Amino acid sequence: MALLFHSSGDSPEAWKAALLALEPGLDFRIFPETGNPAEIEFALGWAFPPGALAALPNLKCLCSLGAGVDHVFRDSTLPKGLPVVRLVDDAMADDMGDWVALNVLRFHRRDPEYRRFQTERRWVRLDQPYAKDRRVGILGIGFLGQAVARRLSAFGFPLAGWSRRPKRVPGVESFHGPEQLDAFLARTDILAILVPATPATENLMDARRLARLPKGAAIVNAARGRIIVDEALLAALDSGHISVAALDVFREEPLPSEHPYWCHPKVLVFPHIAAYTDPETAAAQVVDNLRRARAGAPLQNLVDMQAGY
Amino acid sequence: MALLFHSSGDSPEAWKAALLALEPGLDFRIFPETGNPAEIEFALGWAFPPGALAALPNLKCLCSLGAGVDHVFRDSTLPKGLPVVRLVDDAMADDMGDWVALNVLRFHRRDPEYRRFQTERRWVRLDQPYAKDRRVGILGIGFLGQAVARRLSAFGFPLAGWSRRPKRVPGVESFHGPEQLDAFLARTDILAILVPATPATENLMDARRLARLPKGAAIVNAARGRIIVDEALLAALDSGHISVAALDVFREEPLPSEHPYWCHPKVLVFPHIAAYTDPETAAAQVVDNLRRARAGAPLQNLVDMQAGY
Repeated sequence: MALLFHSSGDSPEAWKAALLALEPGLDFRIFPETGNPAEIEFALGWAFPPGALAALPNLKCLCSLGAGVDHVFRDSTLPKGLPVVRLVDDAMADDMGDWVALNVLRFHRRDPEYRRFQTERRWVRLDQPYAKDRRVGILGIGFLGQAVARRLSAFGFPLAGWSRRPKRVPGVESFHGPEQLDAFLARTDILAILVPATPATENLMDARRLARLPKGAAIVNAARGRIIVDEALLAALDSGHISVAALDVFREEPLPSEHPYWCHPKVLVFPHIAAYTDPETAAAQVVDNLRRARAGAPLQNLVDMQAGY
Repeated sequence: MALLFHSSGDSPEAWKAALLALEPGLDFRIFPETGNPAEIEFALGWAFPPGALAALPNLKCLCSLGAGVDHVFRDSTLPKGLPVVRLVDDAMADDMGDWVALNVLRFHRRDPEYRRFQTERRWVRLDQPYAKDRRVGILGIGFLGQAVARRLSAFGFPLAGWSRRPKRVPGVESFHGPEQLDAFLARTDILAILVPATPATENLMDARRLARLPKGAAIVNAARGRIIVDEALLAALDSGHISVAALDVFREEPLPSEHPYWCHPKVLVFPHIAAYTDPETAAAQVVDNLRRARAGAPLQNLVDMQAGY
């Protein structure tokens, strides 16, 4: 059984080393050096070029090189019925939780205003609401969203989560489905976006939904760029309805140098660094699924291809 | 019994309203409108002018308008044996914990570098250590330091605390006394300073102690400006031994506009906003001590005048 690897952002050498440490005989190949396509039974990667996987007649499993699988759906030639799994990695969830908590705290403590005052050498003390009066909403309260909730609960923020289907998370007020989204947004002062990118979440935060947030709300996007309609966010920032946004993800990455986000005074730009996929911590679950695929056993962290995540 | 209030930074009206709501008959006077000095039995305030309290023959208690009492010791005419109490306020500890956690996370996630990259429109992804590999040290692990520890423990940072006397705090490695300070500093990547300002902590972080921190360490000062020797910190920042510092407190406040901290690229200046004293939450304990002083009962949150806090 051979494994085919492809990613433009991850190191094949690091993945090869981590996987071979656990599975010494593994035949690790790097796309496009596929060799005999019939020998490839497992694909590991991010955004294989369309058609690349359809050319593998004995492929048993595609493992996404991250928590998101939106890249998989961009390949319309993906073999029907091919099982797709994703990485569900504690280390990645921890990093995501840390990054989101940093930005929630930053906005809670009015840090952008203090940073501006420093450049002006101005000693200005602002009113500071208590954490108990700052409502944080987690849009997408799955594996990653719950890592955020665990951290923020130590601060006393009133927490709510929104998910497609009802979910019970201790200490988090639960909202679900499209019909409860407006109510969720209306009670949210700081919105942390962690939903998977699917056809149902594309452009979810458009002008109408941004307007549902209370005036002065802040946004933290750790999910995918295309969940937010950029023009709507820029308009809401300029009108003051949204006070500030921390964005780690964009429709086009790297963010083009002429994009208005780069120099917008109310936007913090991050180069998609909230959570990295670390071969050291994630290799074990890849090897586990590799063995399961080989043995015909049920795969772990299988993607629901209907739901899109 | 009359109460005499003085502070240049707190609102007498807000304190009067909060105290009278709990003690409607209270004779609330604002310095220097002292009236008959013999009628004043309770003083509430911050940095009464030297001599002001010595002029009150029947004063039974001085209550500091905050957690710190260093301002009390600047008055050499303070009557010997006058009981001094301080505010020990959960809301203040929560705010302090939030602000310190924000700055620890900021440095952990290399945020200052990303902020600079944004100004240069550069998409640069840096290595990111795990929280479990980032050792946080809390210099002063009392009431406020423990509020910091509770928050940071949700992130998985290895935590240590240093205090004058041994203290056991769950999940926090304990160091104490001058003889263990160097070992505490040597294991600390991000140092959060929360010790009270006393003769023993003045200039505690001098060039020698800063050099004990590992190369690249970060500093968060939420305590008092004079715990750090400014010239030593500036030199350590310029040499790169200390990578960055978030400072909420200074030897002179407001920080003079010509001070090098204002425009130092590795210093974040805050105008002493980590935690405010809120009359709404703190009035109850002032009234409690007022009644105790009146009844001759033991006071709460009494300051150890030998230790200086």
